[in-house]
Amino acid sequence: MITSGKIYDRIFNSFQKQNFLKLIGAELEHVEKGKVIVSCKRQDSLTQQQGLLHGGVVTSLADVSCGYSALTTMPDDREVLTVEFKINLIRPAVTNKLIATGQVIKAGKTLVSAESTVTDESGEKIIAKMLATMIISPIK
Amino acid sequence: MITSGKIYDRIFNSFQKQNFLKLIGAELEHVEKGKVIVSCKRQDSLTQQQGLLHGGVVTSLADVSCGYSALTTMPDDREVLTVEFKINLIRPAVTNKLIATGQVIKAGKTLVSAESTVTDESGEKIIAKMLATMIISPIK
Amino acid sequence: MITSGKIYDRIFNSFQKQNFLKLIGAELEHVEKGKVIVSCKRQDSLTQQQGLLHGGVVTSLADVSCGYSALTTMPDDREVLTVEFKINLIRPAVTNKLIATGQVIKAGKTLVSAESTVTDESGEKIIAKMLATMIISPIK
Amino acid sequence: MITSGKIYDRIFNSFQKQNFLKLIGAELEHVEKGKVIVSCKRQDSLTQQQGLLHGGVVTSLADVSCGYSALTTMPDDREVLTVEFKINLIRPAVTNKLIATGQVIKAGKTLVSAESTVTDESGEKIIAKMLATMIISPIK
Repeated sequence: MITSGKIYDRIFNSFQKQNFLKLIGAELEHVEKGKVIVSCKRQDSLTQQQGLLHGGVVTSLADVSCGYSALTTMPDDREVLTVEFKINLIRPAVTNKLIATGQVIKAGKTLVSAESTVTDESGEKIIAKMLATMIISPIK
Repeated sequence: MITSGKIYDRIFNSFQKQNFLKLIGAELEHVEKGKVIVSCKRQDSLTQQQGLLHGGVVTSLADVSCGYSALTTMPDDREVLTVEFKINLIRPAVTNKLIATGQVIKAGKTLVSAESTVTDESGEKIIAKMLATMIISPIK
Repeated sequence: MITSGKIYDRIFNSFQKQNFLKLIGAELEHVEKGKVIVSCKRQDSLTQQQGLLHGGVVTSLADVSCGYSALTTMPDDREVLTVEFKINLIRPAVTNKLIATGQVIKAGKTLVSAESTVTDESGEKIIAKMLATMIISPIK
Repeated sequence: MITSGKIYDRIFNSFQKQNFLKLIGAELEHVEKGKVIVSCKRQDSLTQQQGLLHGGVVTSLADVSCGYSALTTMPDDREVLTVEFKINLIRPAVTNKLIATGQVIKAGKTLVSAESTVTDESGEKIIAKMLATMIISPIK
C-alpha cells in the first residue's frame, strides 16, 4: 500500500474535500500513477431493503477509484470529471468492507479511459466491475 | 403526482427500508405502472470537491428510479435487483434538488430494461441519463 | 423524412465514404439538426446462428445514427468520432428492416451525448436502445 | 492457441452458422473454458469514412468474443444471447488484424458477465474494451 508521497498527497487533498465520501466513510488506501484503491466499511446507514450494501455505494466507490486513478496521470493544474461509466453489479455486496481498485486503461490528451474492480474484504470475490470515461478539465 | 394507492404503497414500503436512501435524503415523488419519480435535495454532505452534488448521488437516485419503475411491472411476490447500468453525467449537478424519472422500456419475464433522466429542480436541464437492466428475483 | 438540403448533403457525403455501411446495406433516411435516421434491410448475409439479424448489425446502425446526429450539431470543419456507447438488445431482431433513430441529448464544446432507438420496420417494436458519447475532432 | 477438442468444436459449429461473421471475415483463434479469442483481418469493405476499421466491426468482434466465452461455461443444451454491452473505443483501429479476447468474469445460473479486450495485430495496443451481460437460453 502506498499512502504517502507527492502523488498520494495530491489525491488525498482532493479526497478530503469530498463531503459525500466522508458521509459514506470512504477511505483512500493506495495511490500510484495510474492506480488508486479506495475502501468503505459496512455500516447500517449504507444498506438497501435487504440489508446489503447499496448499489449506489458500490458505484460511488468504483467511480471515485476510476476518477482518481485518472487524475494521477494528469498535470497538476488539472482536475478530473466523470463523463460516464457503466457498472455490472455481479454479486450481492455481502462484506464488511468494499475495496475498489481503479486503473487507467489509456490516458489521452482530453479523455482518460479507466476501469475498476470492486471486491469484498478478502479481495477475492468480485462484487462489481466498472468501465468509465473521465475528462481532463482546468481547475476552476 | 401519484402519491397513494396500492402500487404506491408497495414501492413506498420498500423505499422506507433502504437506509442509504434515508442517508442521502431521497424522497418518493410519484409512482405509476412503469414510471417512478424520486428526488433529493441539495445538502452540503452530498457534495464533491467543487461543492457540486456528487456523481454518486446522481447515480444512486437514477438507479433507484429505474429499479422501482421495473418493480411496478413485477408480480407482488417478486423483488427487483440491479444487474447493471450505464450513466452519462451530462451537466454539472448545479441545483437545489435532483429529480430522477425512471421508466420501463421493456418488461420481460426475467429481465426489465429501464431508463432514467435526472434533471435539475426546474425539470428542464438534463443532468444525467441512465440506461439499465434489472432482474426479477423471488423475495427472500 | 428530410432527404435533401445542406445539412443532409453533409451527412450523405460522409455516409457514402463508409465502405462498411455499403457492405451491410445501410441507408440514410432522414437528417435534421440533432436527429438522424438510418435503416438496413434484412439480408441473409447479416444473420447470426439462429437466422436473426446480428447484434453487431443492430449496434453498427445505432452507432451511425448517434454519430451523425452529433455531427449535425458541429461546425463544418469538424469530424465526429465515437468515444463509447452502451446498447441494450431488448428484443430479437425479427424484422425485414431495422430503423435506427439517433438524437442528440446535449451538444457540448468537446463532447456530444446522444441516444438511439432501433425499431422494427413498423417503427413500433423497440429492438435496441443505445446511450453514447461522441467527440468533436478536426478533419484530418 | 487451442483450436481443437470438444469445447472448441461446440463454439466452432455455432460460429460457422453466423453469416455475418463470414461477411466480415471473422476467425476463431482460441477456445478454452471461460475464454475465447476471435480475429478479423483489415479489408477495405470494413472501413469508415477515414479508411480505418469501422467501430461496428470492432464492436461485433468484441461481442462475439464475450458471447462465446460465456457459452463455454453453459450446459450443452443451452444457447447464449447478448443482453447488453458497453464498449470504449480507445484508439483508432489502425491495424491489419483485430484480435478480440473475451473472458468470463462471473458465470451465474441465468446471466454471465464477460469482458473483452480488442488489440491490434501485435496484441499490445488496446483498441477497445467491452463489458457485457449475456443470458443463458434454451436452444430453440
